[in-house]
Amino acid sequence: MKAALIVCDGMADRPIRRLGGKTPLEAASTPNLDEAARRGATGIVDILAPGIPPGSDVAHLALFGYDALKVYRGRGALEALGADMEVKPGDVAFRGNFATLNDGLVVDRRAGRIDSASARRLAEALQNIKLEKHPDVEVLLRHTTEHRLAVVFRGPRLSPHVSDTDPGKAGLPLAEAKPLTVAASKTAEVVNEFTRLALKILGEHPLNEERKRRGLLEANGVILRGGGVLPEVEPLTARFNVKAAFIAVTSLIRGVCKLAGMKPIKVEGATGTTKTNVKAKAESLVKALETYDFCFLHVKGADNASHDQNLEEKMAMIERIDGMVGYLLDRLNLEETYLAITADHATPISVGNHTGDPVPLLILGPEVLADGVEAFSERACMRGGLGRLRGKDVIHLLMNYLGRLKKFGA
Amino acid sequence: MKAALIVCDGMADRPIRRLGGKTPLEAASTPNLDEAARRGATGIVDILAPGIPPGSDVAHLALFGYDALKVYRGRGALEALGADMEVKPGDVAFRGNFATLNDGLVVDRRAGRIDSASARRLAEALQNIKLEKHPDVEVLLRHTTEHRLAVVFRGPRLSPHVSDTDPGKAGLPLAEAKPLTVAASKTAEVVNEFTRLALKILGEHPLNEERKRRGLLEANGVILRGGGVLPEVEPLTARFNVKAAFIAVTSLIRGVCKLAGMKPIKVEGATGTTKTNVKAKAESLVKALETYDFCFLHVKGADNASHDQNLEEKMAMIERIDGMVGYLLDRLNLEETYLAITADHATPISVGNHTGDPVPLLILGPEVLADGVEAFSERACMRGGLGRLRGKDVIHLLMNYLGRLKKFGA
Repeated sequence: MKAALIVCDGMADRPIRRLGGKTPLEAASTPNLDEAARRGATGIVDILAPGIPPGSDVAHLALFGYDALKVYRGRGALEALGADMEVKPGDVAFRGNFATLNDGLVVDRRAGRIDSASARRLAEALQNIKLEKHPDVEVLLRHTTEHRLAVVFRGPRLSPHVSDTDPGKAGLPLAEAKPLTVAASKTAEVVNEFTRLALKILGEHPLNEERKRRGLLEANGVILRGGGVLPEVEPLTARFNVKAAFIAVTSLIRGVCKLAGMKPIKVEGATGTTKTNVKAKAESLVKALETYDFCFLHVKGADNASHDQNLEEKMAMIERIDGMVGYLLDRLNLEETYLAITADHATPISVGNHTGDPVPLLILGPEVLADGVEAFSERACMRGGLGRLRGKDVIHLLMNYLGRLKKFGA
Repeated sequence: MKAALIVCDGMADRPIRRLGGKTPLEAASTPNLDEAARRGATGIVDILAPGIPPGSDVAHLALFGYDALKVYRGRGALEALGADMEVKPGDVAFRGNFATLNDGLVVDRRAGRIDSASARRLAEALQNIKLEKHPDVEVLLRHTTEHRLAVVFRGPRLSPHVSDTDPGKAGLPLAEAKPLTVAASKTAEVVNEFTRLALKILGEHPLNEERKRRGLLEANGVILRGGGVLPEVEPLTARFNVKAAFIAVTSLIRGVCKLAGMKPIKVEGATGTTKTNVKAKAESLVKALETYDFCFLHVKGADNASHDQNLEEKMAMIERIDGMVGYLLDRLNLEETYLAITADHATPISVGNHTGDPVPLLILGPEVLADGVEAFSERACMRGGLGRLRGKDVIHLLMNYLGRLKKFGA
């Protein structure tokens, strides 16, 4: 027996007046998701607890069976792990953005969504930063996509408990990192020195001169957020005694997957946007299940569209996901495979951010008790036979079908 | 007001292809269970948590309202208590089997399912075992049924944290008990010395000579498993201020019932197998409710059939249970009695062991809100008005109807 878990990032939503009170998932054409619901069991899931909005990292920790509210230690280290950096115990890591600064103000938090090639050149210039005040701290840095960076500080007595230098929205001053605990004052100094040095190096970089000439926003600063250390958790591969793989592009999600001990599977054309090649992902999933007991597949696009409050793009992405599910219903051996489909949180178009609404869940497979629900949506799954579950239950339902849970007691 | 809880061990199952995708409970003829569902409220229950497979002892602790994952201290002491042995604080007890050994190998873990009379004679020969290395430890031993024993070690500084000598399946060597904590090394020595002495005494026993002559497997060793001490829990009789009784044959379940402070009721013809006399059990339940506020009734057969993967026997047992429920619907005064029916875990025929699937629950009685569900099954109860509950909620539902729960707050 094999199992796959597909998480459609931010797919869940709320009723929308323009759609006659339907949700995007209800209004989109989703014959394959509906067919899967008809053949399986459905329910709704509070990823953390009713009403509590989860970040995508925390949501995935929960969906992999961890007590996310307890084990989460910040975003940064997961982001760095997902960017294939080595993160050691004691390392404190941050998510970074190349940004446009002008006289201490953050003019654009993404440096005009700078292209990856340019950003990579700038990241190279930051590789050999030496801190003067704290020479015992090493700065490690990796560019991921577009304006995105992961930054790791390695040295004695560092703490993740410092405030962000990223002010969170454009037009505000670059923030100074402040220690949030007494033990974090060294780290705050480290972050602030790094920030000053990066400003200097980037401000003098010829690529920024060139961007200025071409009328592009300069990428003349790095803003940091989400200081974190790696959570210490038992890999799910050990907990459930499974060979496990993942298909995901987004660094943060990749980091959670790697923390859980899953092996990455590379897919050509998967980009983590609405243009992602879902068909290629589905093909990779079918192939991965030949080798692995469990495969996790992350589809990002619906969340991006929701953050942009772009209803049409969200519905188009849902329909692409539906096509992917159709491919899987055709190609997976459903006599020997359990398939769960859910979301990591709702990102309502009306809100443009994560909310704490429950997400729909469906499970199908050889011994799943079909519950008579005939569609996959936030509303239809409210009536589902699985009832209302928590995020950390989902992997247990799958592992129960795979016989990978130890009996407690005699 | 009175209340009864009927637990049908291992009754819940999964859809079975030979039954057209129905579960045994759906496919069997169960007019009385369905009538009870129509008159009452239904739901599904995760005995511990979604997906987590419980042992029967742990499941019953949960159904009696205890936080089973926290209070459980191993099987052995519950088994000994259920065999009507005295178990004192500090005592460490094991479940034992008479087994057939040959040159250190366990050839048969049940000594050819030795008859009870022979096993009782052998158990007598083990009554006066004196340990040489640890003379401060007393060995107490009781035969229960067929090959089954309960063994209690009494003395200073004993620990339940030793590994089993039972290798778990035939054809493997008799295992040496190993300490699982530093504090358990004395106990491991005690168990190993007991095992050696038992081998010697049984090997020389005339009954084994006789069995050899008759071509029967010798019962020339004792294998131990499930070391445990008694959990310290408040009896439910005190917690809920009820007079409570139980009807159960299986030692392990009897032990949990006694731990919970319930009084045993003896039933003629109740055997803990599929041949158990369910009618006699039902009569005893009706009678017990004249005296007691709460009576628990355990029916074992469906689990035995499931472990043997015998679908016909499981369905026949379900139909016998249905007959018992019919008798109860006729004879109980349902104007003054609440009746709950559930299972302690699923034991799917396809798996032959406990799984973490939820179990169906029904409650009927004078003030139960009927929910419109018209059948008692894993699937029908998914739609039930009670929703999805946890095992430890069930007794609280009953005690709430009996007015035995204290208001929390003002």
